[in-house]
Amino acid sequence: MTNSVYITTSLDGYIATECDGIEWLNSFPNPTESDYGYHEFIDRIDAIVMGRRTYEKVSSFDPWPYTKKVFVLSNTLKEVKPVMVDQVEIVNGDVSNVVRRLKDRDYQNLYVDGGQTIQAFLKKQLVDELILSKIPVILGKGIPLFSELSQSQWFEHCSTEVFEGGLVKSHYKKI
Amino acid sequence: MTNSVYITTSLDGYIATECDGIEWLNSFPNPTESDYGYHEFIDRIDAIVMGRRTYEKVSSFDPWPYTKKVFVLSNTLKEVKPVMVDQVEIVNGDVSNVVRRLKDRDYQNLYVDGGQTIQAFLKKQLVDELILSKIPVILGKGIPLFSELSQSQWFEHCSTEVFEGGLVKSHYKKI
Repeated sequence: MTNSVYITTSLDGYIATECDGIEWLNSFPNPTESDYGYHEFIDRIDAIVMGRRTYEKVSSFDPWPYTKKVFVLSNTLKEVKPVMVDQVEIVNGDVSNVVRRLKDRDYQNLYVDGGQTIQAFLKKQLVDELILSKIPVILGKGIPLFSELSQSQWFEHCSTEVFEGGLVKSHYKKI
Repeated sequence: MTNSVYITTSLDGYIATECDGIEWLNSFPNPTESDYGYHEFIDRIDAIVMGRRTYEKVSSFDPWPYTKKVFVLSNTLKEVKPVMVDQVEIVNGDVSNVVRRLKDRDYQNLYVDGGQTIQAFLKKQLVDELILSKIPVILGKGIPLFSELSQSQWFEHCSTEVFEGGLVKSHYKKI
């Protein structure tokens, strides 16, 4: 089982501006319309685990952007829109238990998305793979990818790719 | 005139642990004893500007590690050890004025070092070049490279190099 983080940040480690803004990401030049390897990544994923905040953000996207089952980690959200019941399921409780339950249901490879969810997985040392892309901007403030951890975690560098426009994507695996 | 930052951080953007520890940096495997391009960089620098905290840290190194003149930004430090007067000079006041005064003395290319000094330069939009190296570790806490800024700053990606051991160095220029 592999829990993977695939996310883009600013040089100062923010995933969004203070009001969840991602215009700096969307406006970043992408002359060849590269998907930056996203589809290759998503093809080997069984399901996506995200927090309520990320879910509510992507819910506004039309069309729904995911081809894999989405599990929304939330202790407050009780149900999803009827039209979404096949694609989305709410899960709650400790992330270690959530991962165990999903594994029992044969969701082996999870894409962990959203700042707070990634932080919860890191706190439990449950992130096996980090695919981090950097946009060459210092935002100065916003929603950070990382938060405080009680101990350091080493990774092994697997590969780094530079895309036209200057996005740098590095792939790391937990040691 | 170019003000350059050349620094190594953890994946979560720390330059040292909470107690100024850099063991995680020094213990990072470097089988070919690469200098990661440091000498090539330092050769095109006229002087180094650092804060008192960084100066006090490097003062304990033997031998003194710098071949270029070092300016220590400090409003409290009054003098340097007699043995250091040729290599080190104390400067104070606003960083914009410091840069202007050094330029008048023909120090055109400055290496800006130390967390607080880099942050002071970024706040005044005085960083022209960023050379950022990443060690594949999440430290979880420590002394951050970046701090809050009132506005975002875009850079252009120039190059990225991966060194044996997995250090990723990216070179950016201010747009």
